[in-house]
Amino acid sequence: MLVILKSHAQQEAIDHVVERIESLGLKTHISQGEFKTIIGAIGEESPELQEQLATIDGVERVMPIMKPYKLAGREMRPNDSMVQVGDVKIGCGNYAFIAGPCAVEDFDTCMDTAKIVKKAGANMLRGGAYKPRTSPYAFQGLGEEGLKILKACREETGLPVVTEVTDPRNVDLICEYADMLQIGARNMQNFVLLTEVGKAGKPVLLKRGANATVKDWLMSAEYILSNGNENVVLCERGSTGFEPELRFNLDVGAIALAQIYSHLPIIVDPSHPAGRRDLVRPLCMAGMAAGADGFITEVHSCPEKALCDGKQALTGKLIAELIQQVQRFIDHK
Amino acid sequence: MLVILKSHAQQEAIDHVVERIESLGLKTHISQGEFKTIIGAIGEESPELQEQLATIDGVERVMPIMKPYKLAGREMRPNDSMVQVGDVKIGCGNYAFIAGPCAVEDFDTCMDTAKIVKKAGANMLRGGAYKPRTSPYAFQGLGEEGLKILKACREETGLPVVTEVTDPRNVDLICEYADMLQIGARNMQNFVLLTEVGKAGKPVLLKRGANATVKDWLMSAEYILSNGNENVVLCERGSTGFEPELRFNLDVGAIALAQIYSHLPIIVDPSHPAGRRDLVRPLCMAGMAAGADGFITEVHSCPEKALCDGKQALTGKLIAELIQQVQRFIDHK
Amino acid sequence: MLVILKSHAQQEAIDHVVERIESLGLKTHISQGEFKTIIGAIGEESPELQEQLATIDGVERVMPIMKPYKLAGREMRPNDSMVQVGDVKIGCGNYAFIAGPCAVEDFDTCMDTAKIVKKAGANMLRGGAYKPRTSPYAFQGLGEEGLKILKACREETGLPVVTEVTDPRNVDLICEYADMLQIGARNMQNFVLLTEVGKAGKPVLLKRGANATVKDWLMSAEYILSNGNENVVLCERGSTGFEPELRFNLDVGAIALAQIYSHLPIIVDPSHPAGRRDLVRPLCMAGMAAGADGFITEVHSCPEKALCDGKQALTGKLIAELIQQVQRFIDHK
Amino acid sequence: MLVILKSHAQQEAIDHVVERIESLGLKTHISQGEFKTIIGAIGEESPELQEQLATIDGVERVMPIMKPYKLAGREMRPNDSMVQVGDVKIGCGNYAFIAGPCAVEDFDTCMDTAKIVKKAGANMLRGGAYKPRTSPYAFQGLGEEGLKILKACREETGLPVVTEVTDPRNVDLICEYADMLQIGARNMQNFVLLTEVGKAGKPVLLKRGANATVKDWLMSAEYILSNGNENVVLCERGSTGFEPELRFNLDVGAIALAQIYSHLPIIVDPSHPAGRRDLVRPLCMAGMAAGADGFITEVHSCPEKALCDGKQALTGKLIAELIQQVQRFIDHK
Repeated sequence: MLVILKSHAQQEAIDHVVERIESLGLKTHISQGEFKTIIGAIGEESPELQEQLATIDGVERVMPIMKPYKLAGREMRPNDSMVQVGDVKIGCGNYAFIAGPCAVEDFDTCMDTAKIVKKAGANMLRGGAYKPRTSPYAFQGLGEEGLKILKACREETGLPVVTEVTDPRNVDLICEYADMLQIGARNMQNFVLLTEVGKAGKPVLLKRGANATVKDWLMSAEYILSNGNENVVLCERGSTGFEPELRFNLDVGAIALAQIYSHLPIIVDPSHPAGRRDLVRPLCMAGMAAGADGFITEVHSCPEKALCDGKQALTGKLIAELIQQVQRFIDHK
Repeated sequence: MLVILKSHAQQEAIDHVVERIESLGLKTHISQGEFKTIIGAIGEESPELQEQLATIDGVERVMPIMKPYKLAGREMRPNDSMVQVGDVKIGCGNYAFIAGPCAVEDFDTCMDTAKIVKKAGANMLRGGAYKPRTSPYAFQGLGEEGLKILKACREETGLPVVTEVTDPRNVDLICEYADMLQIGARNMQNFVLLTEVGKAGKPVLLKRGANATVKDWLMSAEYILSNGNENVVLCERGSTGFEPELRFNLDVGAIALAQIYSHLPIIVDPSHPAGRRDLVRPLCMAGMAAGADGFITEVHSCPEKALCDGKQALTGKLIAELIQQVQRFIDHK
Repeated sequence: MLVILKSHAQQEAIDHVVERIESLGLKTHISQGEFKTIIGAIGEESPELQEQLATIDGVERVMPIMKPYKLAGREMRPNDSMVQVGDVKIGCGNYAFIAGPCAVEDFDTCMDTAKIVKKAGANMLRGGAYKPRTSPYAFQGLGEEGLKILKACREETGLPVVTEVTDPRNVDLICEYADMLQIGARNMQNFVLLTEVGKAGKPVLLKRGANATVKDWLMSAEYILSNGNENVVLCERGSTGFEPELRFNLDVGAIALAQIYSHLPIIVDPSHPAGRRDLVRPLCMAGMAAGADGFITEVHSCPEKALCDGKQALTGKLIAELIQQVQRFIDHK
Repeated sequence: MLVILKSHAQQEAIDHVVERIESLGLKTHISQGEFKTIIGAIGEESPELQEQLATIDGVERVMPIMKPYKLAGREMRPNDSMVQVGDVKIGCGNYAFIAGPCAVEDFDTCMDTAKIVKKAGANMLRGGAYKPRTSPYAFQGLGEEGLKILKACREETGLPVVTEVTDPRNVDLICEYADMLQIGARNMQNFVLLTEVGKAGKPVLLKRGANATVKDWLMSAEYILSNGNENVVLCERGSTGFEPELRFNLDVGAIALAQIYSHLPIIVDPSHPAGRRDLVRPLCMAGMAAGADGFITEVHSCPEKALCDGKQALTGKLIAELIQQVQRFIDHK
C-alpha cells in the first residue's frame, strides 16, 4: 500500500509511519517528491493497518495497491469459472435463461407459469417463497408451503429452481427444496446470511446491491467463497439513480467491469430496473450484449392478478420472444 | 389512489379498471380530460391493488394519495414522540449525545473511551460487539465478550448502551446486555431483523440505508412499530453519492423531511459520512441545525490503533469541544 | 393537471385553487376522497400555473398529466423520425457509425485517423476543434484551424463531419465547416446555445447531460425544435454514478425510455462512460442492444500521444472489429 | 504523479513509462513491490501527460499527487480570502445575507420585494433578468429591462445586486448594472462563460453544478481566477440525488470540504435544494452550521403569483425570522 503524506509533513510523521509499518513485519520504501513524501509498504497488507495509518497526523491518504478480493478476483485466478446448477451450466459459454413468477402465490398459478417458461425455452425456474417487501402490509410469501410448490414444479418440468433466502435460520430448510439460493439485492451486505450460504455449499445467485460498487459486490462474493462455497453466480439488477421513471438503472458498466476483475459467471436481471414490461426486452438485450452469461426475469400467467411486481412481469408470449432474440444474439456474437 | 390512463385509452380499459376497483369494495370516480381519463379509487388501498392496476393495458400510471406509513407518519399521529432509553429522553426538546468506539476491541480501551466520553458530556455510550464489515478478513467484533465489556462500562459510567444487532438469532442475547438496539444502515431493509427487534420491545436506533428514500426509511420503521414496538429513534448517517472524497453524503434534507412526515425522534451520525476526523464537527453541527434531536459519533482513546474506522474517530479533546458547541447551539436555537 | 390538497384542507383553499384555475380559462373537476380532495384542471396548462398553484396554502402537490415536450414527444407525433447528415441517414432502420479523434490535434494525426475510421467502416467523422476541458491548463482545441483540418478530412474521405459547438458566437463559423453540430453533455442545458443551434438549422447531435432526466433531455431537444430545427439526434453518453472505476454510468434505460417517449433518433457514445479502452466494446454493444440507432466513439492513430482522452481511444484494429460486431448484431436483430 | 503498473508488467512497459516521463524533463523514482511496480514522476505534471501515461500497455492507473487547482487551492495560499461587493464583505468572519425574487417580473413586484428583504436585514439583493429555464415555453426573464429595475432597486435600498449571466455576449451589459455576476449551476462548466466573467473582473458568485465534485467546482473557479479575477465566492445549491421529494440534496459535506481545500468564501443557497418553503429554514441553518459565510435565498412579495419558483419563495415574515435565527447562530458560534 502507499502512504501519501501532507505537503510539508514533518520528519517525525514519516518516522512514525515507517515504524508502524515495519513493526508489523512489512518493508518500507520512501519516495521524496518536491512537495510530498510517499511511503510504500511491501508485504501482506491488513485492512486494519490501512485505516490505522490513515489516522496518523501528517498522513494525507493511504492507497491500497492490490485488490482485496483474493478468491473472487482474477489476480490469483485468471480463467473464467463455471457454476453448475442441476444439469444447467452457467459461464464459459453456457447460458442461464431463468424465468418464473416474482412470488409463489398458489399451486396452480405457479405450475401454469412454470409450464409456460419451460415451453418458452427457459432452463431454470425462479420463484420467491420468502419475499422481502418494503411494506409490512404487503404479501410476504407463502414460506415452506411455497417451497413445496416450487419442488412440485421442478418435478413436473425438470427445471432446476432458484429461490431467495432472507433469514439465516431458514437456510437449511430451503436447501432441502431448492437447487440454488438467491441472495437479494437488499441482503448483499447481510454478512450473517452470506456466511450461512457460504457454509451451506449450494450454488448461490448473488444480486448486486442497488448502491454497491463492483468492489463491494466482489467482497460479498468473497464472504461466500471464503466460507468454502465456490459456486457463486453474480447478478446485476440495477443501481439507484435519479431518473424518476426507472425503478433502477441497469448498470451495464458494472457487468463489464465485474467480468474484467472477477472470474465468476454473471447474469442480468432486467425486470427490476425496468419496473415496467415494455423495458424488459431492451434491458435484457443490453445486459447480454455487455457480456452477461444469461438472465433472470419475471413471468406471470396473468400479470394483472400478480401479488407482487405484476407491472414488470412478462407474459408467455413475451418470454418466448425474448428467449428467441437472446438465442439469436448468442448465435451471432 | 389515482389511475391515469394513456391518451386515447379505449372505453374497455376504463371499464376494466373500474370493475377491478369496485370488485374489491372501493368506490370509483371518473374524471375525463381533453386527452386523458383519470379514475379515482376511494377506500382502503392495498399495496397489491396498486401494482395490479398498473399492469392493465391502457393504464399509464397509478398514484397513491395517502402515505403508506400509517404508524410512523404524522397523518394519524401529528405530535412529536419521545423515546426513553434508561433515564435518557430523546425527542420533544430532549437530546441524545451518544459517543463511544466504533467497535469494542478489548476491556481497557473500551473502558478508557467510555470514561472519556462521559467526562466530555455524552449521555449515552455506543460500541459494536457484532460488526458488519465489507471484508471477511477484517475484524468482525468480539461478540458476547464485547457485550460483557459494554455492560461493565455502563456500570462504571452510568451511561445507557446502544449496540448493533446483525443476526436475528442474537436479538435476545443482546437485549440482556444493551439498553438500545441499533439497526445499521446495511440492514435497514433486513425485514427479518426488523420484525425481530419489533417483537423484542427494546428501544431501537434505526439508521437510514445509504440509498433509502425517506419513504423507504419510514416503511422500515413501520415494520418495527407494527410489531408492537413504539420506541424507534431514526438516525441519518449519509447517502451514497458521487463525491470521491466523502464516504457518504450527509443528507440534511432527509432529516428535515423525516421530521415533516414522521413524529419519531431523529438523530444524526456525522462520523460515517465524514470518513475523516476534520469533517465530523461541521457535519454534526449541520445535522443539529437541520433539526436533529441529538447525535451519535465515534470516539477512540487512541484512534491510530483502532481496529475499525479510526480515521474518523474523535479524540477526547475533540468530543468535549463538539458537545460544548452543540450545547451552545441548542441553548440559542 | 391535478392539484392534490392536504388532508383536512379547508373549503377556502379548495375555492382559492378553483378560482385561480378558472380565472385562466381552464375548467375544473373536483373529486372528494375520504381524506383528500383532488382538483383536476382541464385545458392548456402553463408551466407557471403549475408552480403557482403549488404555493397555495393547503395544496400538497400538483401533478402535470400531459408530457411537456410537445414537439419532441410521441403524444402528438407517434412515428419515428429520420435525420439526414450529408448522405448519411440516422433513424428508421438507418445507423450512424461515427468515429474519430477526441480533439483535432494537428493535420497529419487527424487525417491519419480519418482514413483509419473510413477504412474500418465508419460513415461519419467526429473531431473537436473547440474542447470544453475541466482544467483551464489543458489543451483547449485548435479553434478555426481545427475546423479547416476537419473539412480537409471530409474532402479526402467523403465522411460527413460532426464537431462540438461551445460558444453561441461561433455557431455561424462552425456551420461553414461542419455537417452536424454537437451539443456536449455539459452544455445540454445551455439554453442560449440551444436556441442558437435551433436557429442555425444544421443537424444537431444533442448529448444527454450527466445528471439529466429523460424529461430534461427531451426539453432541451424541445428548445432546438421549437426554434425551427427538426434535425435533432439524441446521444446517451453516461450519467453520474457512484462507481469509482467508471467515468460515467452508461444509462441503457434512458435509451430505451427516450425511444418510448420520443420519435427522435438516438445514438450511444460508449467512450465517455467507459473512460478506458477495454470497456468501449461491451458498452457500445449494450447501447445498440438497448435500441440505439448508431454510435459515436473515439479513435486515435496513436492513443498514447493523444492530447485528450487517449485512455479511452480505440486503435484502428479495435474500431474495425467493433463495427463488424455491431453490423452482425444489426443483421440478426 | 504515481504510475502503477499491472501485476506482472514487463520490463519493457516500465522502460517505456520512464522514457516518456524523463523525455519531458521530469525525474522518475521506481518502487518495486512483491507484485506491482510503481513509478513516481517528480516535477511539473501536465494534465496531458497523466492521460497519456494511462494509455500505455501495462499501466494499471495513474494517480496525481498535487491538487490541480493552484490558484483556488490552499496548497499555495493557505489563508482565507475575503471578497468585497459594494461595501459588503464576504468571508473572514463577514457574512452575506442575500435575498430577493427568483426572477425580476415587473417594477412594482421587484421593488416591493427589495424593500421587504432590506427591512428583514438582508445586505444584498438577488434577482434574475436572464433566466435559464428547463422549458422553452416558460418565462425567460425581462432581459435588459430587468437589469434596469434591479438598478432602481439598488438605488432605492442601497443593497448591492447580484444577477445571473447566461450568455457570453451579455457580460459587458450586465456589468453596467450589477455589482456581482452569478454563474448558475447549469453553467458551472460553461467554460466560455467562465472565461468571460474572469476577464470582466466583477465579483462572481459561482454556483456548484448539481453533479460536480468539489474538484470540478474548484477547477471552474480556477478558470475565473486564472483569467485574472480573484473575486470569486462559491455557492453550494444542492446535488442530484434519488429522493423524489427533494429537488436537490443540499451537500453540507461539499461546503465543509471546499473550505478545507480552498481559501475562497462560500455561501449556501437553501432554496433550490428545498424546492418547498418549509424546508428552506432547516437547510439554510444546516449550511451555516457546516461553515458557510452566508446564504442566498428566494423571497417574493406574493409567492403564489410568482412567475418562477414561487413554491420555494419565502414571505417577508419568514425571511425576517430566518435572518434573526442565522444572526443568533453566528453570535454564539
